[in-house]
Amino acid sequence: MVSAIQRATDRSEQEIIELISRIKEPFKMASRAFKGVDSVVTVDGRSIGNGHFAVIAGPCSVESHSQIVDIAKSIDVSGAKFLRGGAFKPRTSPYDFQGLKSEGLELLRAAKKATGLPIVTEVMSVRTLEEHADDIDVIQIGARNMQNFDLLKAAGQLRKPVLLKRGMSATIEEFLMASEYILSEGNHQVILCERGIRTFEKYTRNTLDLSAIPVIKRYSHLPVVIDPSHATGDSRYVESMALAAVAAGADGLMIEVHNNPEKALSDGKQSLTPGAFNELMKKVEKIAEITGKIL
Amino acid sequence: MVSAIQRATDRSEQEIIELISRIKEPFKMASRAFKGVDSVVTVDGRSIGNGHFAVIAGPCSVESHSQIVDIAKSIDVSGAKFLRGGAFKPRTSPYDFQGLKSEGLELLRAAKKATGLPIVTEVMSVRTLEEHADDIDVIQIGARNMQNFDLLKAAGQLRKPVLLKRGMSATIEEFLMASEYILSEGNHQVILCERGIRTFEKYTRNTLDLSAIPVIKRYSHLPVVIDPSHATGDSRYVESMALAAVAAGADGLMIEVHNNPEKALSDGKQSLTPGAFNELMKKVEKIAEITGKIL
Amino acid sequence: MVSAIQRATDRSEQEIIELISRIKEPFKMASRAFKGVDSVVTVDGRSIGNGHFAVIAGPCSVESHSQIVDIAKSIDVSGAKFLRGGAFKPRTSPYDFQGLKSEGLELLRAAKKATGLPIVTEVMSVRTLEEHADDIDVIQIGARNMQNFDLLKAAGQLRKPVLLKRGMSATIEEFLMASEYILSEGNHQVILCERGIRTFEKYTRNTLDLSAIPVIKRYSHLPVVIDPSHATGDSRYVESMALAAVAAGADGLMIEVHNNPEKALSDGKQSLTPGAFNELMKKVEKIAEITGKIL
Amino acid sequence: MVSAIQRATDRSEQEIIELISRIKEPFKMASRAFKGVDSVVTVDGRSIGNGHFAVIAGPCSVESHSQIVDIAKSIDVSGAKFLRGGAFKPRTSPYDFQGLKSEGLELLRAAKKATGLPIVTEVMSVRTLEEHADDIDVIQIGARNMQNFDLLKAAGQLRKPVLLKRGMSATIEEFLMASEYILSEGNHQVILCERGIRTFEKYTRNTLDLSAIPVIKRYSHLPVVIDPSHATGDSRYVESMALAAVAAGADGLMIEVHNNPEKALSDGKQSLTPGAFNELMKKVEKIAEITGKIL
Repeated sequence: MVSAIQRATDRSEQEIIELISRIKEPFKMASRAFKGVDSVVTVDGRSIGNGHFAVIAGPCSVESHSQIVDIAKSIDVSGAKFLRGGAFKPRTSPYDFQGLKSEGLELLRAAKKATGLPIVTEVMSVRTLEEHADDIDVIQIGARNMQNFDLLKAAGQLRKPVLLKRGMSATIEEFLMASEYILSEGNHQVILCERGIRTFEKYTRNTLDLSAIPVIKRYSHLPVVIDPSHATGDSRYVESMALAAVAAGADGLMIEVHNNPEKALSDGKQSLTPGAFNELMKKVEKIAEITGKIL
Repeated sequence: MVSAIQRATDRSEQEIIELISRIKEPFKMASRAFKGVDSVVTVDGRSIGNGHFAVIAGPCSVESHSQIVDIAKSIDVSGAKFLRGGAFKPRTSPYDFQGLKSEGLELLRAAKKATGLPIVTEVMSVRTLEEHADDIDVIQIGARNMQNFDLLKAAGQLRKPVLLKRGMSATIEEFLMASEYILSEGNHQVILCERGIRTFEKYTRNTLDLSAIPVIKRYSHLPVVIDPSHATGDSRYVESMALAAVAAGADGLMIEVHNNPEKALSDGKQSLTPGAFNELMKKVEKIAEITGKIL
Repeated sequence: MVSAIQRATDRSEQEIIELISRIKEPFKMASRAFKGVDSVVTVDGRSIGNGHFAVIAGPCSVESHSQIVDIAKSIDVSGAKFLRGGAFKPRTSPYDFQGLKSEGLELLRAAKKATGLPIVTEVMSVRTLEEHADDIDVIQIGARNMQNFDLLKAAGQLRKPVLLKRGMSATIEEFLMASEYILSEGNHQVILCERGIRTFEKYTRNTLDLSAIPVIKRYSHLPVVIDPSHATGDSRYVESMALAAVAAGADGLMIEVHNNPEKALSDGKQSLTPGAFNELMKKVEKIAEITGKIL
Repeated sequence: MVSAIQRATDRSEQEIIELISRIKEPFKMASRAFKGVDSVVTVDGRSIGNGHFAVIAGPCSVESHSQIVDIAKSIDVSGAKFLRGGAFKPRTSPYDFQGLKSEGLELLRAAKKATGLPIVTEVMSVRTLEEHADDIDVIQIGARNMQNFDLLKAAGQLRKPVLLKRGMSATIEEFLMASEYILSEGNHQVILCERGIRTFEKYTRNTLDLSAIPVIKRYSHLPVVIDPSHATGDSRYVESMALAAVAAGADGLMIEVHNNPEKALSDGKQSLTPGAFNELMKKVEKIAEITGKIL
């Protein structure tokens, strides 16, 4: 483990062991004590963190060539920096649509070709990671797999960005510990994503914990992205929560956009139309400017 | 009950009964179906709601004449519209400081005299309400008493503003139902205050549920105020959450300010210094402007 | 406060102050360090605690003379020691049935006259307590009022048993602190009642926290009663949870029984019929015997 | 999927499709509508479910030959039917002891050889399942992996029992849906295990949701086992909760036992000594007898 860290940080093994042993938090390489300055993750010249703000947008599921390419073009025009879209879908029921899988990845590549937008997509197993990592720009590890330690370690072996979502009932400490599984394997390109925690409230799907932003910023150098779409589960609440996230100091947003929300194969209820997304981006820019972020 | 509503709304008894019977939500007079336009609560020319933004600030507990007057003067200069300060304190332990009670109210009056700031203070019992309502500008009903129905009804009998805090584990629906106890007695000057809900997360005292803002705005016409101080329990997270609340569309903020946080008799850890509060207000103003609010 | 304790415990003021100052838990008189042996609460020769097991049964709401008297007779035959029935009802909506109030209390007195069963009923305000305490054998303070400190103190001034229900989102520590408000006023006849806590689970109304039994037994000498009816909200789960409570070491049960559950004015869904209650009691007796309890 | 079901149930494909389409719950093969009679899982003549009660006991982690063999012998004498012990350990921190892995499995085999007790052990990845399934009698899927769908499907391909633990914040519905991923692949030997859910309570590690027993029994035919050791996190509460589980109708218990809890490499605080486990078993037998179970 230490030798991986060594390669990644240009510190001697001895230095790293001593440094880690002095850190009193349970997370080590994710902590401010390990790295004081904010981390920045960059893909194809597009950055998140340390003052750089980025919006990741796209549909819940990749459904067809025209769907993903059309959405990609429209969010690109509106100012999104990354394209999201699910090819391998984690579904509560084995009888629900499980995603287009490899075919979905190909469609994402086509959308990238058409727009230049790097691809963020979820991977649910080590096997998929091994087969398809080369086709993905940012590996997303979903909330249900936040403590799938084998998957975290495999992602840690890669040298490409990982977007790690907070588990539905994970404390922030456990969230940072999960990122430590990736970091300690030598992969330092980790983006944290808060997507709502499970509470008793019923008017929203989950409760978006925006206080995670200043808390993580205090304890860690890793960039923090907010997903208001999955958190609220309702497109009517997305704009409000997206703007709140920017004001609170988030480094980015992850927003579901669909060109035909009513006919989406999954999560249509929480998707913005391209038009609504465009309006949102204008407001996001204004608030990001106040907080001193570079879009 | 209906006759009280009648007096308050200039509608005939028959009209009100018919209107309420058609509303499908469990809350009636709190609903958008009962009143489409946003409500505004005004005290001494200072308004909250329907585009008017207001900050309520002050110490957790009133401690002394100089403490409360000094803080009042400083927050007044920074732009707060109301002074908060606890005279009757709800404390988990019977052995903890329970507030200065009547003497605390007198000190609040002195601070009002010195600054013109209307007073917001918590009342924990019907008896206190009967004895002291005249000395208070905005009656605060605390989270622990959100379903103290006798107290809600007594507050409903008054014709002065009530700031109702969400219970620590109350759903938004229950929160609106609690307001209905006040409204249905004929008192329409109700301000709702979200102050964090109880979850499993340990790095913050409670989890501030900012999604309550767009949810309440959708279902209700009542103004919504956010208390990031009690929610986070940590002054280092207050600014971030305050700005998020403004961006999300809140009508106001409730912020703890103490001139000597380290020696505060209660909740010092979450109090801003007057200097930090002044800085916060500048940022609040910028974001409120973007959201189209009048400070 | 100390003088009240003094009267109640035959210890000198000095002894009590010293004893309390040495207790490291935040709750003092509720703690095992204050009183090592289990407390027992006795009404008309019927005891709960320190090896004595008691079942409190009856309808959610008192509805009519025949309803409450019939139910009382039937639960008496089945072995219940106390009659429960709501006269003052805490309801989420102001438009729901609020109880028969004073008339309900009179009907409870009639049922007591017919059976000898002491009465357990909820009181929601200090005023009601002052007016009606004499007509009630065991004052119930409901979950919503667990931190209504004025009500707790007023109940502490009485010299009759108080059954205190755990708040829906109260920690066990806060629950014991609430009992401390009653104990520290000199009333030592406190029974604690666990009735389910609020969680994310949807198949039951609340989640019955049976681990509260051994936890409270470890920290406190107060008797613990379990209410599986309100916790589960479903009569089909009541027997299972009632038997579990006995096996876990509870000192008593609080069970809703209605002679016509389908037409009950409140909470019919969770009420047992008299026949089902009679069957339950036979099983309760068998398990209570194994745990060494006296019925 | 259907053909796997077909093989497992001796129904025609057409019959199965029709049957499933008529089931209104989101879970199908796990439901009572699919199979009315309680399922029973049997290993080496030892059964769980449909009236058969079984205790699974052993240490959190396998640590050494003498440790696991000694514990196995002692729990065997006390009446346990299965031996549990962790070889692959899911740990929040990458820096904590991760288990003896393959070596741990070998030690478990040695303990089985010495006692005849079938082995229950956790598998955290598809790879481990492929390599080691033959050496394990009951595959445990842990709480963190309850929605690791690839692992569930792989376990569904096997024809050996799977003990599936409820996720820390999974609803009972999601728990049954997770079992559906195993069942729908054709593996019908599924045992459900409730091990505590995450709540705000702090005196116990998690809140044991015993009401899951009658709820699951109502909706499903699958056997239910309770793990009071992980739920409470404290050996002082284990007996009380174990007995409650039996009284509530559980089909089995999973209990941590260690011959030297204070020196255990993980979770020593919650482990019973062999002596305490022996005492517990005597009480378990008495209550199981009352509930009509065969030990």
